[in-house]
Amino acid sequence: MAEPLFERIAFLGIGLIGSSVARIARERGDIAREIVVNARTQKTLDRVMELGFADRVELDPGKAVEGADCVMLCAPVGAFADLAAKIAPHLAQGAVLTDVGSTKQSVIRDVGPLIPAGVHFVPAHPVAGTEYSGPDSGFTTLFQGRWTLVTPPPGTDEVSVEKISELWRRCGSMVERMEAGHHDRVLAIVSHLPHLIAFTICGTADDLADESRQEVINFAASGFRDFTRIAASDPVMWRDIFLNNREAVLEMLQRFMEDAQGMARAIRWGDAEYIEGMVERGRKIRRSLIQQKQA
Amino acid sequence: MAEPLFERIAFLGIGLIGSSVARIARERGDIAREIVVNARTQKTLDRVMELGFADRVELDPGKAVEGADCVMLCAPVGAFADLAAKIAPHLAQGAVLTDVGSTKQSVIRDVGPLIPAGVHFVPAHPVAGTEYSGPDSGFTTLFQGRWTLVTPPPGTDEVSVEKISELWRRCGSMVERMEAGHHDRVLAIVSHLPHLIAFTICGTADDLADESRQEVINFAASGFRDFTRIAASDPVMWRDIFLNNREAVLEMLQRFMEDAQGMARAIRWGDAEYIEGMVERGRKIRRSLIQQKQA
Repeated sequence: MAEPLFERIAFLGIGLIGSSVARIARERGDIAREIVVNARTQKTLDRVMELGFADRVELDPGKAVEGADCVMLCAPVGAFADLAAKIAPHLAQGAVLTDVGSTKQSVIRDVGPLIPAGVHFVPAHPVAGTEYSGPDSGFTTLFQGRWTLVTPPPGTDEVSVEKISELWRRCGSMVERMEAGHHDRVLAIVSHLPHLIAFTICGTADDLADESRQEVINFAASGFRDFTRIAASDPVMWRDIFLNNREAVLEMLQRFMEDAQGMARAIRWGDAEYIEGMVERGRKIRRSLIQQKQA
Repeated sequence: MAEPLFERIAFLGIGLIGSSVARIARERGDIAREIVVNARTQKTLDRVMELGFADRVELDPGKAVEGADCVMLCAPVGAFADLAAKIAPHLAQGAVLTDVGSTKQSVIRDVGPLIPAGVHFVPAHPVAGTEYSGPDSGFTTLFQGRWTLVTPPPGTDEVSVEKISELWRRCGSMVERMEAGHHDRVLAIVSHLPHLIAFTICGTADDLADESRQEVINFAASGFRDFTRIAASDPVMWRDIFLNNREAVLEMLQRFMEDAQGMARAIRWGDAEYIEGMVERGRKIRRSLIQQKQA
């Protein structure tokens, strides 16, 4: 077994991502010698102890990070500013602070200024997930074949960047470095916009008369169902993502709405060629995905 | 084995739905004694003979329906008016003409007036599918646990309605009777709108700069992928569906766009409560689906 990357890792928040990393760290042994978990409620911490992937739990985030040489923010991104303020005075000199948030510019904006000198901040985003949340939902193969995007601001300590990259490789992930603003735009189209659409169409269906609503459920297999899997995701996490990647989400939504209006116009005026062209593009993208084995 | 429902069934078009019904008819033996298949190209008909689920193939639709006591239109709905005109003089007295199209008002509008006296027209729609098409794509379990909606206009011969309903039950489907206009509205929200959105968002992504396009493929697992499965469907079939369910599709798209604008506004102005509420509704609908075992 390789030498552990860290002596002690502290997780602040322990949902799908955090508890998957903790399970991997526990199983492999070469990520950290000691695992400390912090969450907002004692109930979650009790459950974490039952699940057996932590050495120690702490209800106070400041206490959780004391003496840890790696601290991983795994809460919804909207909670990061508060958490960072609480832990800043307790962070150990030389520690690496990282996160798993789905928006990166907001994290750099909210957390960056609060980091004490001598602590290294390496923002990262493992692009993996399911529609489940909470400490029970994690599993050790979540990151296999998936990408983790590491988005350090200019001037970040390279040794720390490499340690966090190696942590994700040991979790089974491929690692790519990306500028935070570019990350936010790419994620807006591949993840945030599809989720926004999925939540929205569920609402549109839910607004139909009661009779039709039952029928939506009966006949969901014809397309609607594919949209609802991702619509089952955690509301607070997604609220925070939309609010913290506002510019890019609004831009991608605007582009999509223009394209949808284009389809509406083609349908209204019977422009068969335009419609066929749009459907063909969908197939093309799908074929690319299959060729890249992401589907 | 029960007595076959029909002496001879003729399929006009033999894609996913038609070839699934033909396979079931061949396997069960109690749907029709003889299976005749018509398609637009000899190549498809040759393939059908190789696949072995037809007794006979006919390139001429008129010849295909001669002497058949059941005729099933399985082509894209945009081809129905033409097909109906071609077969009308050849339909046998007392025959039942049915279809599997995804839009029902247009079928009644296009086919209804062309039916000779003494032929019974029973429009129907098996709400089942995959993203695959063509005679190779059919399989005998496609309709199991799914619904077939039968939408006979007022005054349709009840014996014929019951025969078509029984055909679908023998295919493994549940059967429900529905008014054609109501059918078109329900399908617009559960199937046509989700497909329209899926095709559109693929186009939106495809329009991004080349570099981002590769990244869309790399990170598709984060949500986008779920939208692309249904975007792989047959372009001509979908073009025809959109054009032939224009009013309902445009209305549902309009409702959806209003709701998406509502989300855009909430994101722009930071209305956290509104966003959380929308996400919660998505979860609620998803839970209903799971409870009804459609997911």
